[in-house]
Amino acid sequence: VTVRIAIDCMGGDHGIPVTVPASLAFLEHQKDATLLLVGRESELKAALPARSASSIEIVHAEEVVEMHDPVMVALRGKRNSSMRVAISLVKDGNADVCVSAGNTGALMAIARFVLKTLDGIDRPAIAGVIPNQKGGLTTMLDLGANVDCGPDHLFQFAVLGAALVEAIDEKERPTIGLLNIGEEVIKGNDAVKEAAEFLRASALNFYGNVEGNDIFKGTTDVVVCDGFVGNVALKSSEGLATMLAGFIREEFTRGPLSKLQALAAMPVLKRFKRRVDYRHHNGASLLGLRGLVLKSHGSADAVAFECALKRGYEEARHRVLERTVAAMQPYVEQLERLHRAQPSAAASA
Amino acid sequence: VTVRIAIDCMGGDHGIPVTVPASLAFLEHQKDATLLLVGRESELKAALPARSASSIEIVHAEEVVEMHDPVMVALRGKRNSSMRVAISLVKDGNADVCVSAGNTGALMAIARFVLKTLDGIDRPAIAGVIPNQKGGLTTMLDLGANVDCGPDHLFQFAVLGAALVEAIDEKERPTIGLLNIGEEVIKGNDAVKEAAEFLRASALNFYGNVEGNDIFKGTTDVVVCDGFVGNVALKSSEGLATMLAGFIREEFTRGPLSKLQALAAMPVLKRFKRRVDYRHHNGASLLGLRGLVLKSHGSADAVAFECALKRGYEEARHRVLERTVAAMQPYVEQLERLHRAQPSAAASA
Repeated sequence: VTVRIAIDCMGGDHGIPVTVPASLAFLEHQKDATLLLVGRESELKAALPARSASSIEIVHAEEVVEMHDPVMVALRGKRNSSMRVAISLVKDGNADVCVSAGNTGALMAIARFVLKTLDGIDRPAIAGVIPNQKGGLTTMLDLGANVDCGPDHLFQFAVLGAALVEAIDEKERPTIGLLNIGEEVIKGNDAVKEAAEFLRASALNFYGNVEGNDIFKGTTDVVVCDGFVGNVALKSSEGLATMLAGFIREEFTRGPLSKLQALAAMPVLKRFKRRVDYRHHNGASLLGLRGLVLKSHGSADAVAFECALKRGYEEARHRVLERTVAAMQPYVEQLERLHRAQPSAAASA
Repeated sequence: VTVRIAIDCMGGDHGIPVTVPASLAFLEHQKDATLLLVGRESELKAALPARSASSIEIVHAEEVVEMHDPVMVALRGKRNSSMRVAISLVKDGNADVCVSAGNTGALMAIARFVLKTLDGIDRPAIAGVIPNQKGGLTTMLDLGANVDCGPDHLFQFAVLGAALVEAIDEKERPTIGLLNIGEEVIKGNDAVKEAAEFLRASALNFYGNVEGNDIFKGTTDVVVCDGFVGNVALKSSEGLATMLAGFIREEFTRGPLSKLQALAAMPVLKRFKRRVDYRHHNGASLLGLRGLVLKSHGSADAVAFECALKRGYEEARHRVLERTVAAMQPYVEQLERLHRAQPSAAASA
């Protein structure tokens, strides 16, 4: 069976100069995929080779959601944007998954509006994978879609994250950690404390509280947190990685001797660099929707965008949506009950 | 003038085997300090050289706050603990600063109970320094003392952090960043949005919102955040650093060739390691109290504990307390007004 991927080719900091080369590179390795390149037809044609593969199709969309467009402009004012058309292809069953590097807020809002959320889910969450010390990947959510999360939201994230890992990694009953703070004065805020109770009472494989360092230790398969907290943790880590890379570069170029030593160590340094290159983990999943949507980093280059395409391809091939719906069945009633009991859970945090 | 440091020698994962050697090493370089070693006299005597310096004094305290003692046990049940006695030495004017590697919750509670908070401050905050890309240090607070922070708490942290940097780094009007999330759907939670308004209206040098990566970029001198968020950011970063160090080690010991290459690169790697060794930034300040208290990492070794002693020494020498009180003067009224207006600010978050 062919996997059909709708690609918002205009999105991201770079647009076509990144998305089209990434698409072509992706097809080199993935013969059983069909790519629907969404964007301005003339610009796409100009970027494609004269005779492009039969597995590439152009879907024209006149408008472009800019990176700094307010959500309302993107949602209401640009109904023919490449982002919206790409998502609609999923909605209408013409594509299995949509991938965009565009404006996160707009992508979330349009995806939610067009696709709608699954039963029991209030708002979609953003899930990303982070390499860990065990050589595996930690799936973490939410990474910034939902702030002021109540305990019911954290519980929803746990259900969605578990379903994703079960489907993609074919791992049964993945372990769930609830991100908390450790030995400090008050162990966690109110939302986290209450969410822990829900999780303990559920059939999920709840490990218990984890701390920031457990993300990289790989203590649990899934780490669940408020979107504000998840976003800060992720960006802090990116910042630290960038700083350390800069330090290594500086130390190895400090003088002629250091440069020689760097040359000697180059193969090892390269292996290390490849291993921690976060471009290879680009592609966050928008979970909780009635359709698969992948969000690429806005500043992704072609290597990184290709990884997001691969991730989207894997989610479609592993039928993450159907499996999420199935995995959620035991919880739908509980989620809806929680939702009714806490209509404004966020305010109770 | 001599700086008198009261040291909780029994605190931390290791107690005397770390605190005493660190104290002796510290005195080697700091001749103008007097150390009050607080703990069980017989054990301290056994750990000290037969003829110890006149600048060392033992203050006996029979009890020990264990790392996992609940706050109430430490506060109510162990009134003669080394931690409490060390803090009381500051309270009574017999020491200028207290340093402890003990249980954070207990230290916070006892310090608050014995020393009391400054006018306008509800609860003490934990401030730490983090090395940044610019080669400087970013001061970040709160790192875990206060969760569910309201806008008034975030504002208090800004005032305290600015005063600390002004005193220690002798930097006028340090810049303040409010930790937030970026391009995502809703820019920040309610507490952060409101805190930004307070900060903009104040005389503080408010830079605006910053994101997780700005901590390491050194975008601002001070980064202010909720204690839950700060704790997660810090521990995530520690986790990433540990993982990367492990990867480097693995890559350089993968085979005989790699080992040779590592040998060649050793001087550079060592320089890099020294540069990112977070033991050299050990020592977080408990701010907002009527006395100086430094919290060392519980697992600190002697090198790290010595750094906490140095940090405590610097705070006392720079008269951080007096300068904080002075720096807060313009804000005391505003802080108290905010406090009255939002008696349960945490609940409004």
